[in-house]
Amino acid sequence: MTVNASPSLRVRTFDTSRTALAKIAKAIASAPPVGTPQEQAAVAEILQAVGARGAAALLEYTRRFDWPQAAASRLRAAGSDLKAALSSISAAQRQVLETSIARVRSYHLGQRPSDSLHIGEDGGLLGTRFTPLDSVGIYATVASSLIMAAVPAQVAGVRRIAVATPPGRDGKGRGGVLAVAALLGLGEVYRVGGAQAIAALGLGTGTIPAVDKVVGAGNIYVTIAKRMLFGTVGIDGLYGPSELTIIADETARPDWLAADLAAQAEHIPAVGALPVVVLISPSKRIIREARAALRSHLAALKQGEKIARCISSTGAFVAVRSLREAAALANLLAPEHLQLSVREPLSSLSMIRHAGCIVLGHQTTVPISDYAAGPSHILPTGRSARFSSGLHVVDFMKRSSVIAVSPAWIERQGEVVERLANLEGLQAHARAVSIRRPG
Amino acid sequence: MTVNASPSLRVRTFDTSRTALAKIAKAIASAPPVGTPQEQAAVAEILQAVGARGAAALLEYTRRFDWPQAAASRLRAAGSDLKAALSSISAAQRQVLETSIARVRSYHLGQRPSDSLHIGEDGGLLGTRFTPLDSVGIYATVASSLIMAAVPAQVAGVRRIAVATPPGRDGKGRGGVLAVAALLGLGEVYRVGGAQAIAALGLGTGTIPAVDKVVGAGNIYVTIAKRMLFGTVGIDGLYGPSELTIIADETARPDWLAADLAAQAEHIPAVGALPVVVLISPSKRIIREARAALRSHLAALKQGEKIARCISSTGAFVAVRSLREAAALANLLAPEHLQLSVREPLSSLSMIRHAGCIVLGHQTTVPISDYAAGPSHILPTGRSARFSSGLHVVDFMKRSSVIAVSPAWIERQGEVVERLANLEGLQAHARAVSIRRPG
Repeated sequence: MTVNASPSLRVRTFDTSRTALAKIAKAIASAPPVGTPQEQAAVAEILQAVGARGAAALLEYTRRFDWPQAAASRLRAAGSDLKAALSSISAAQRQVLETSIARVRSYHLGQRPSDSLHIGEDGGLLGTRFTPLDSVGIYATVASSLIMAAVPAQVAGVRRIAVATPPGRDGKGRGGVLAVAALLGLGEVYRVGGAQAIAALGLGTGTIPAVDKVVGAGNIYVTIAKRMLFGTVGIDGLYGPSELTIIADETARPDWLAADLAAQAEHIPAVGALPVVVLISPSKRIIREARAALRSHLAALKQGEKIARCISSTGAFVAVRSLREAAALANLLAPEHLQLSVREPLSSLSMIRHAGCIVLGHQTTVPISDYAAGPSHILPTGRSARFSSGLHVVDFMKRSSVIAVSPAWIERQGEVVERLANLEGLQAHARAVSIRRPG
Repeated sequence: MTVNASPSLRVRTFDTSRTALAKIAKAIASAPPVGTPQEQAAVAEILQAVGARGAAALLEYTRRFDWPQAAASRLRAAGSDLKAALSSISAAQRQVLETSIARVRSYHLGQRPSDSLHIGEDGGLLGTRFTPLDSVGIYATVASSLIMAAVPAQVAGVRRIAVATPPGRDGKGRGGVLAVAALLGLGEVYRVGGAQAIAALGLGTGTIPAVDKVVGAGNIYVTIAKRMLFGTVGIDGLYGPSELTIIADETARPDWLAADLAAQAEHIPAVGALPVVVLISPSKRIIREARAALRSHLAALKQGEKIARCISSTGAFVAVRSLREAAALANLLAPEHLQLSVREPLSSLSMIRHAGCIVLGHQTTVPISDYAAGPSHILPTGRSARFSSGLHVVDFMKRSSVIAVSPAWIERQGEVVERLANLEGLQAHARAVSIRRPG
């Protein structure tokens, strides 16, 4: 008997015929990544130090937390470091990375907003102009996340893309991030991680110029640092543990559902909060069989015990009375990923109001969206899908309104402006229009 | 001689032939609204109190800071309060408010994003679905700002729109906000202001349910509260004092420029930082004549002395050597409003990278965009136009990716996903695809 033979799996199970929907949602929903007061104080200190002492503070924190042998001149990866990283992956790996890059690029090229121009009454011109950000800092801990942030930024036309990635104990970085940077032609890569990396990107260090926006997901320290820098620079979102909610009807395959739940729970961080996985079904048989299938699926996985512990801790099975109720619960959870493993996925889709990414139909599993579909896998978590969206080419652009009016407009419509200005007691506003009035 | 006869106007003047562009930009650029440590501590305390004690704390702060006679049952305006507010404005005022509403609505209807669907290789489906937020809280201190936030939210389809507006000493609110709420059919209006209003909207109070996103501009306490709630709820942006940069060539009319500068400087808050006004010109004559025109223009305004003090404190005239240099300086300032009062505004426009709203040509003055053009006048300030945009219908919607693949897709393209998962050491991710492989 191997240690994997029977992972200890005990999943919380709810039934809406016995417990109110809102109560179930409260018990299983994830929350925004706020951090403890201690974590917040630690990050505030790091931001303060990097803000005040720049490169010296960045080096100290990097040595203390990550890379004991770090040298100031080595924090930025040299061209030779990037080349070496690219050489270290196999030709087959390089090829799939290139496929993923091509697909994400093609998707975002199709999503890039275009300028518009409208000529209205009396010769008024109303336009919308999109311009890229000048500079962006990307925090990436794995190769695919760098693709998912850098490619939309490149498509947007961002001139300067600075990458920060945790160096590991040996300074080589993790998960092929440096190799992907080389593939994408990104030359500005810093081997720094944690709150100090976010501070360096957002505040600048003297040697690293501050960027205009910081994007990407990291641990709670990274997230707190992003929250604290919001407004000083642009911030994409605050990302907590990954999440999956599956709605499955009696046509779903329990063994596939088990594989999907296990994949999601595999996003177990070295430290920090666990991913959240939820299976909702109007079929008690599906829940029963998925549970059994999950047990045997986990027995065959190297990380099976860890995944079992994760699902036992944060997972939930919920028996509902209808697909409508399933959708209502999913809306309360507002998950990062929602999987509709049902016979008629479009009819369930029409009931969904909040989810970062929705995968439809029995064939479709979230790892496809993680790597190869096209949209970024950097998605809202912690119920923030109620008010925000996945990272996208528009997050690397700004929209300026463009307005021009003619003398005829001033003559015929200027009065509206003058009266509104007077209503708000703004005489000088009214005068800026009346002075242009003919006659 | 009246007190207005010669407002004391002394404007900082720079010349790029004597001072480097970057140095001038540093001297005159605005900064993000961060607040002092004391202000931050005061807001943290308010958030804590409202979070812990809800409605009771909201009432206490409202009595202390705004409305001494406030009663719990009166914080939410009754239908009769809204009707009374609407009756208190003239028919002519009502008509121009309705015109403004219609124009903002028509503009945002044209800007509402549509769902898209794309069928790709091997029957893969890739879609984008937009859904409105469930609930939004709008902070508005004047009528036009309520229009500029609530109409895009209504166009987006937001079901619940809660409004908070400072009550004033008598609880009647200010600047026609209640009248506009009545015109827009907004029934949930709270007469509360400051950080306690933002806390009530973002955290809920027991009687006021928390909203999903808080938008709108207020004083520094409002702004700090929004910053602190970022991530717990959605936040549109952090707004500081209003800003105008004008680029004018020798074809501009100095008297019109003077009126434009005065109008911008008229946004003088009761407390807090002053608006920023900058005139850039390659023509020293224009700067000289605009200065003289400004002096006589201010003499004729009721608020002339106050505006003169504002412009003397935060205003600047900058003589440049070319329109190219003017655009370079404008990009460093990244102003909320940029006015191109030049012969060929489109050619200057092409050089502009960062500005919230751009008005073109001699006829066009910013008050037109403030009230009646269509786009929201809630715009990025404090150089945040480098990374963010004005409030827009998209800020009240979220984008969900929708992905579906066919068995053929899994067969032919599943391997890309499996290999990428293996590259990142995620065996369970690879298995979720391979288990679906036919054969």
